[in-house]
Parts: sequence; structure tokens; C-alpha cells
Amino acid sequence: MQRWSQLFIPTLREAPADAEVASHKLLLRAGYIRQLGAGIYSYLFLGNRSINKIVAIVREEMDRIGQEFLLPALNPREIWEESGRWTVMGDNMFRLKDRKGADLCLGMTHEEVMTSIARNELRSYKQLPQIWYQIQTKFRDEPRPKSGLLRVRQFIMKDAYSFDIDEAGLDESYTKHDKAYRAIFSRCGLEFVAVEADSGAMGGSASQEFMVYTDAGEDLIASSASGYAANLEKATSRLEPVEDLDPIGDGQPELVHTPGQRTIEEVGAFLKVQPQCQMKTMAYMAALPEADHAKLGALRPVVVFLRGDHTLNETKLSSLAGGELRPMTLEEIVEVFKAPAGYLGPIGVEAAPHPKKPGTLVILDKALEGRTNLIAGANKEEYHLRNVTPMRDFKPTLVADMRNVIEGEGCPIDGSPLRIGKAVEIGHIFKLGYKYSKSMGASVLNRDGKEVTPIMGSYGIGIERILTAAIESSAAANDGAAFALHPAIAPFQVVVTITNTADANLQAAGEKVAADLSGAGLDVLLDDRDERAGVKFKDADLIGIPYRINIGRGVAEGKVELVDRLNRHTQEIALDQVVPTVTDQITSAKQPLLPASGVKTS
Amino acid sequence: MQRWSQLFIPTLREAPADAEVASHKLLLRAGYIRQLGAGIYSYLFLGNRSINKIVAIVREEMDRIGQEFLLPALNPREIWEESGRWTVMGDNMFRLKDRKGADLCLGMTHEEVMTSIARNELRSYKQLPQIWYQIQTKFRDEPRPKSGLLRVRQFIMKDAYSFDIDEAGLDESYTKHDKAYRAIFSRCGLEFVAVEADSGAMGGSASQEFMVYTDAGEDLIASSASGYAANLEKATSRLEPVEDLDPIGDGQPELVHTPGQRTIEEVGAFLKVQPQCQMKTMAYMAALPEADHAKLGALRPVVVFLRGDHTLNETKLSSLAGGELRPMTLEEIVEVFKAPAGYLGPIGVEAAPHPKKPGTLVILDKALEGRTNLIAGANKEEYHLRNVTPMRDFKPTLVADMRNVIEGEGCPIDGSPLRIGKAVEIGHIFKLGYKYSKSMGASVLNRDGKEVTPIMGSYGIGIERILTAAIESSAAANDGAAFALHPAIAPFQVVVTITNTADANLQAAGEKVAADLSGAGLDVLLDDRDERAGVKFKDADLIGIPYRINIGRGVAEGKVELVDRLNRHTQEIALDQVVPTVTDQITSAKQPLLPASGVKTS
Repeated sequence: MQRWSQLFIPTLREAPADAEVASHKLLLRAGYIRQLGAGIYSYLFLGNRSINKIVAIVREEMDRIGQEFLLPALNPREIWEESGRWTVMGDNMFRLKDRKGADLCLGMTHEEVMTSIARNELRSYKQLPQIWYQIQTKFRDEPRPKSGLLRVRQFIMKDAYSFDIDEAGLDESYTKHDKAYRAIFSRCGLEFVAVEADSGAMGGSASQEFMVYTDAGEDLIASSASGYAANLEKATSRLEPVEDLDPIGDGQPELVHTPGQRTIEEVGAFLKVQPQCQMKTMAYMAALPEADHAKLGALRPVVVFLRGDHTLNETKLSSLAGGELRPMTLEEIVEVFKAPAGYLGPIGVEAAPHPKKPGTLVILDKALEGRTNLIAGANKEEYHLRNVTPMRDFKPTLVADMRNVIEGEGCPIDGSPLRIGKAVEIGHIFKLGYKYSKSMGASVLNRDGKEVTPIMGSYGIGIERILTAAIESSAAANDGAAFALHPAIAPFQVVVTITNTADANLQAAGEKVAADLSGAGLDVLLDDRDERAGVKFKDADLIGIPYRINIGRGVAEGKVELVDRLNRHTQEIALDQVVPTVTDQITSAKQPLLPASGVKTS
Repeated sequence: MQRWSQLFIPTLREAPADAEVASHKLLLRAGYIRQLGAGIYSYLFLGNRSINKIVAIVREEMDRIGQEFLLPALNPREIWEESGRWTVMGDNMFRLKDRKGADLCLGMTHEEVMTSIARNELRSYKQLPQIWYQIQTKFRDEPRPKSGLLRVRQFIMKDAYSFDIDEAGLDESYTKHDKAYRAIFSRCGLEFVAVEADSGAMGGSASQEFMVYTDAGEDLIASSASGYAANLEKATSRLEPVEDLDPIGDGQPELVHTPGQRTIEEVGAFLKVQPQCQMKTMAYMAALPEADHAKLGALRPVVVFLRGDHTLNETKLSSLAGGELRPMTLEEIVEVFKAPAGYLGPIGVEAAPHPKKPGTLVILDKALEGRTNLIAGANKEEYHLRNVTPMRDFKPTLVADMRNVIEGEGCPIDGSPLRIGKAVEIGHIFKLGYKYSKSMGASVLNRDGKEVTPIMGSYGIGIERILTAAIESSAAANDGAAFALHPAIAPFQVVVTITNTADANLQAAGEKVAADLSGAGLDVLLDDRDERAGVKFKDADLIGIPYRINIGRGVAEGKVELVDRLNRHTQEIALDQVVPTVTDQITSAKQPLLPASGVKTS
């Protein structure tokens, strides 16, 4: 049992003006955190206490499937060079020099260190599988830190890495993590959804994110009643069939004068065609991973053709192109298309014959596959083309899904309408494949005495994300003004509020109730401050404790009030029933009320 | 219960050649750690498991006296400028720039961050006292990382900070920490000694270190049978009285030609006087804290006069001079003394009248107080002086204890002979005073409504130091070839070794014993590997588990062997006595055997 009067719980009546999302405001107001710098926070008593509880749950579940390590935050440049990520990480990685001038970085993730240990220590298939995890501080020089603990420059992560002899082994390690993650998030009281996620840029084969719906989230999730759920970066949909335009003239591409008509809308209005029958051209330069520089040049032109009413998903593109993207400059556009922006199209662009061959990577969005007689830019100022039929009139390097799905389109499983909601990512599991084990030269002897490369998975949970997602969910159910955490992760499970400490009877009853609950193994906060009851109720609700027991006048009749904040239920109970009632309610504690958009996969 | 066959415990037959101290060799050989870079280590399964147990003990004891926070490792430059330590920390602090070019550093300690929180949040004496602690990773760009985990560039520290309204409050907070630290180290099974430590450079008023004697240590401790124990940086002693020389001539300082005689020994032999009757001159430049630059100049000459047979303790000097020291260059010597090295002495050196006034800081070592007719350099090439009597012939800025005590000198308490031993520091408690609260502008209103500055303490425990000190102590008792940790901090409390897994009876008995012990709440490792018994015994002893149960042929008669490695005792016990016997032994576990030099204060 702890006494509020002895603790440092600096609650605030109002949140600083620059706090936008609910969790940021509440974490500050509740005295959980204080800001030290941009994206850098100190966790005070309550915040740290909640973090410790989350960490303990994560550790307990991870210990069932793997072994805990602790790796250094300071990493020498060399191992990041080996994987190629010293360059790839760009400005997101904090870099520094030591007193001797040697290059170091602060670990954003630990594939390199784990793989270097595996490379040095693992020799035989008999030592596999291995699952190694840690709970440790990560650093990331976020360009725009914001939203309190949601986008920060230093955070705690549980990261895990698996090493298996083959894909079947990886499947098992991946499934173990999936189960462990579900157990962890459930125990933390979160309503989460597991969604398909992008796995391209890292060269992996499968990837799943665990998400909590909240308006504070920066991810978009497409989901449907079928149970389908995918990050917008990965989501696909069934499209309604579109009627192609009839061919004009001999059906071959034909120039049409479109003076001053540049956008899809302008050209559509001018030619009286729907955007579905037009092609949109998107032109980028991709910064390639160092390994491909020699072959393809450091920057490579990438051109995507989409249906006129569709939008490009840049993650899908970056994942396919294998590097960071930026829009082409006007000069680059003229070099690739021999034409100015506004009139760009597919015909005349020299497409690389294969993604691994030099030249412009030309991608036709899957939604345009099989379409005919489209309107496209002519690569000639003030002209467009009619009758453009992909594959006949031009050959892209490849056809791939590049677009954002749109709310209401059909779910790829059963065609039921897709919904799109904002969410925050709390975990990610990822079949990495051979990227690190190969580039860093890890190998073991297999059953036949042959050297083989182990296959890897990597798996992460954002510890603070669990806390913020829980607060966001609860705040959404409380109009953003208060929150209640699940008793498993709340800094205290129950607060005993003595409504008037000047009344010796109330004081004594409060002490006894708190001591009894504490004796029964509950984590109890006794509000013994000399404050008005209203202030104490407000403070108790503000700091997120799920159960509050009000020690008031009812004590004279042997009664106290029990407020179940998760279920928003208040009841009067007899003093001698406090321990069994509260214990029972905590044991069967429900998850916090969900915001309206919440769905589940399973 | 965990099965060795499923774990990653990469034991090594030999330690790398560059590992010198016992704990370094054993941590590597036992598969506790692996090196990633200079002074940067990965903690593998066993190492991390032991660290986690130490952390849990520290947290439990600290929770009795304070509140846990978690502060960021990334610190903005600004708060370190406020305290003046951005400059003072020099190359020891890792510094970096973020993507916007802003200066950051990696926290070596958190006085600044804690004080900034106190400054922003504390308003009234009613909020005091506060004790805020954290268990967190610290960074320090150690110039010569070595000795495994003893001198590293990244480590885990429990640091705590107290804020009190007055000195009486600080005394209480300090005493609370002293008690908590003793409880922590005892629970970890360490034989430690609390010693007086230097507190000067930080401007504090009292300071105590917790030390474990070991030859791997880099600190020297002077102690005696009286219970006295002090770091050499702080230790004093009673000196035998020395007979002064008789005056020569009129008793006034008198030049004597000493051609080519520069050292104490040379001059002593030449003039036939003992070193005790000579003065030794030490000349330094002190780099002052920025705050004193304007007044005293960035570098200040500091001159110390010692008895001829004494040596200077640089920490005592640096602590007094208030900054980093370096020896004077030959040019600087000539400027201050108007004479070349070898003939330096006190007469003619212009001493600052007060330490806070500009000029050369001249310090007379306390051992020369009251002495007369000494031999000293004459500040004239090839000449010394006779009849030099301090205070009469020259006035130092101050008289202070600057020397190293010597083994055999009298303890300051009762005169019994001092012993000097090597030790490693595991904790430190420190009355900081007002340095940070004042420079950073923290203040609260006192009972009379007056603004006052809170007084601070700071307190640290090196988590890895506990592990290494425990290993060093145990290794010393095991000829450096093995170790056994106290069951409270060992990665497992007991290992059950199935001597022959091919024998189904032994296998079954081992499984049952391990399951029973585990069911009784013990932390059990079952060695179920298909290895020879000898290999398994060796490995089990190598990884530091304090109790080993050998499941061998005796099982046929219902017997197993219990090896108590802490007390080096082996006994045969009945199978049905395993649980009560082991539980009993673990509960009453003794501390590891002490190396010969070990002493205690209390």
C-alpha cells in the first residue's frame, strides 16, 4: 500500500497547449511524464510504474518462447556497414564519434548485433531454433516528434529475433510470436486487431502488425466484416468492373489536342470521359540500397501508371522499388519523358526489361491490367492520347498493386464493403528471411554436414505504445477528459479515497480497507491527502486507476462506495465485502470500452 | 524449470587472451557476455538473468525509501550548460548532434534532469522530502575500457537523488540510502566495506563508498582493526613524530650549493639529511570550472609542498583545487618559480592570499605543519635552502592534507597500523549540497513563506559491478578458475545434473527432482544434455550456479549428491530429502568465501 500524501504525483488542471492527442494531454495532466526535449520524455513515478507492469507482462510471455538478452545501445559502425544499413538508415539514426574519432550509432533495432552473435556462436543445426529477445531502449531521430509518447526519439522496445534452419522452422517461430503477442496485448486489456502489413523493403516474406484503433493513430487500416484487416500499405480490394471506352478510328493510339488541360479532371471534362478510363502518371526517383548502386546507379527513375481515380500508396512503391523515394524534378521528368509535366504518359518511356536491369522501372498498377482504349498523356506538350491499351502499346517492367484501396470497395475475401480506420501500431512480427544472416555471413552445418544460412524473423513491441494505446482507447470512451487503465497495467489497481481526513472514523476505515486490500495482494493507493473530496475524486480518475473506493458517510452504516471505472458502474458494498468484491472484479476485469471504430480479427 | 538442452549457453574452454581479470575471463567463458566493441558488451541469457535478479533486489529495497522514475539517456545540451558540466565532463561524455544540428549528450548521470524536474514541479516545503531513483543505462566514453564489465562505456546504474528542506533532512535521506545499500549488497551475498570517500570536487559535504576487496579493483582502501576504512583519496593517518634538524647559523633560510643534486634522494645524500626533513615541490595547472574562469583565469597554477618521503594524492588536490589537473610545463614552471625544475621551493612564490583570489594556489601539506629548519629548493639553479620554516619564511594559501597514507602508518582513530587493499566500488552515497539546486534555480517556499533552495543528495549503485564483484570474490576463493554466485543473484539457484541421459532411470529421477524443486519455488536448471558427466559438472561449475545435484548411480538406492559450492561441501541425501534440504540451504545461504584481504566496517 502506498500513501498519496507521500508520493510525487504532479497532476495538472490543464494540459500544455501544444499537446494535441488525448494520451499526450492525459499523460502530462496525470503526472505520468514530463517533456525534457523534442520527442524526449522523463517518466515520473506513475508513468514508470505502469511501464514496469507492462514490461513484466511482456517478459513473462516472452520467457515462454525465448531467452532474454540485453544488447548495447552503442553500436560500432562496422556491423551496420555489413548489413548495408549504415547508409540506408539516413538521418533517422543517431550517429556519434567517440573520443578516438571512431563512428558509433545508437541502435534503432538490433538485427545486426543479434546476427553478429549468431554468426560467432552458432555452428550446427542442433543449436537451432533460437529465439532471443530483449527489452531495451531504442533511439530514432524522428523528423517530427509529436503526440506525446506516440512519436518520440527514445523509447522502450521489446525486440526479438529468431534463427531457424528452414522456412518451416521460421513458420513455427513466427506463430509462437503471434500467440505470445496476442497473450500480451490481451493481458494488458487492449482491444487489438492483427493486420497484414508490408514486408517488402526488408526483403521479408510475411509480416503482421498488431493495431489498436484510435484517432490518434497514424496508420490506416482497411477491414471488413469478413475478418479481413490490412494496413493500407498492404490492403487490396475487389473493384467493380469498369466499362472500357470504345475504340476510336483504327483503334491505335491517336493524338488529341488538349491545350492547357493537365489534370485528370481537366482532361476528363475536356474529353468527356470518366477518370476510370484515364491513366495517371506518377514519376519518382528511388535511392537504391548501396549494394545495387553499381548495377543500377545511385538514383533510379521509377514511373507508375494508375487508373485516373486512384491514388498511389508510396509504401507499396518504395517496398517494390527497394529504396527511399522522392518526386522527380522537372529536369528529370524531361529527361525520362522528353515532355513536360501535365502531359506524361507511357508511350515512349524506355522501360527496364527486368527490375534488376538498369533503366527506368515502369510499373503498371494491377487495376489497369486488361483495360483498353485508355486516355493517357502523350509525352508531348498540349497533347494526350486516346486508344491506349497497356501491354499492346507499351510494356511496363512489371504489373503490381500500387494503389490505395478506398472505403466502400469490396473486401478481397468476400467482397463485403471495406472500412478504413486510423490505428496505432503496438507490435509487429516479420519473417525477415535471409537478408541479415546472408549479408553478415551467419551459417550452420545442417544434418548432412553442409553449410546453410539460417533464416530469421524479427518481432517488436513498443512498450510505451501499449500504454498510450490503452489511454487513447479509454479516453475515447471518456470524451478525452479521463481514462482508466486495465488493472494489469494501471500504476495502482485500486485507490481508496478518504473523503474527509479530518473525520477520525473515515480515516480509520480508509486505513483498514486499504490495509485489507493490500493484504489480499492488491496494489493499493490510499488517498490520505488533506483535500476536498471533489478534488480527490477528480485526481483519482485523472491518473487512470480502474477501481475507486470512496470512504464516506456510509461508513457509519458499514458501507462504502465502489466505483468500477472500466464498466462505469458504482455500487454500495458492505465493509466486510470490500476485499472479495474488489478481488473478484479485478480478476474478471473487462477490457476498456472500445472506441466506435474498433473491430477484431479473431 | 528450464532445460539446458533448449538454452543458449555458449561456454568456452578458454578465455580470449586479452581478458585479464578473473571476472572478465569467467563472464566470457561462462557465456554470460560477449564483446561488441571496446567497453561495449552484449549480455546473453545467463548474464541478463543474473542482472535481472540484481535489479529486482535493488528495486525492492529502493521502493522502501523512494519512488522510481525513468529518465531519458538523450539529454539536451542546455541543462548541462546550466549546471556547468557540459564543459567539465570533457571527453568522458558522449556528445552528438540531431538531424537539425542541435547538441545532445548521453547522460552519464542525471543530476541535471532530476533537478530540472524538481525546479519545475516542487513549490513548497510540504512536498519535501523527495527521493527519486531510476535503474537505467548510463554512457561514459571511458578513455581505457578494460577488465570486462569493470570499466565499460555503457552500463546500468541505479541512481537516486534526494531533495530536502535542510541539512537535517539530507542527513535522514542519506542515512536511508546507507541502510538500503547495506540491505541490497547483503542480499546479493557480497562482503562489502563502507568507506569514507572524497566529496570535494562536487562541492558536497560527505560521501561514502561501498567497496568489495578484490585484486581486480582500481581503488585503494586504507583500513585498520579499529573499523576505520577510507578510500586512499580521503584516508588520513597518525604520523610518528619526526625530529626537526637543528638550525644552522642564525636560523634564517640560507643558500647551500647543491650542484647536480635534484631529487630528494640526491639532496638527502649530499647534505646527509633524511627525506622527512626535506620539502618536496609539486607543480600543476588546474583547469577551473567555467564559473571561475573570469575571476581566476581558465588555468591556474597550483603548487603543493610535501614532506620529502610523502607522495601526493591527486584526487585530494583536484578536489581542493576544484578542477582537472595537469603537471606544469617547463615554461610554466619558470614563470611561476623563476627557476628550473629540480630546485623548486616555497620562498619567492607569490601565493594567492585566499583560494578564491587570483594567483598561484600554494598548498602546504598538513604533515609539514609546525615543522622547522627544513631543506627545500631555493628557486635558483644548483641551490637549495636550509633552515626553511613554514609560516615564518613563507605563507601558503592554505594548509591541507594532500598526501597518500602509507601501509603501516597509524589509523586516525586508534593508531593501529593501517592496511591498504585494492577494491572495486559498487556503490556511492553523496551529500551533494546546493550545487545543482542553486545553479539550476530550484526553490521552494519554506514554512515561513520564504523562498529557499532545497539541499540535494545523490546516490549510485553499479548494477554490473555487483555481478563482477561477486564473481571476483568467488573466483579468488576458487583460484580464478570457477565461481559460484549467491543464490539470490545466480542465473539459477540449483542445477540438476543427469550424469547419464541414456539411463532412463536417471533421466526420470532427474526430471522428478527438477520438477519437485521447481514446484517448491526454486529456480532450477535441468542439465538434460547428452554429454559426459565430467563435461556437465565442469560446465555447471563454470556458469556459477551455487547448488548442484548430481543424479547418478546412487539413485538405485534412492540417493543423490548435493554439492554446496559456496561452502565447498558435498553430501549424499535421500531423494525424498532433496526439496527440504536444498530449500533450507538456499534460505540460509552464506555469502561467498572472501578473499584473504577482506574486512568489514560494522
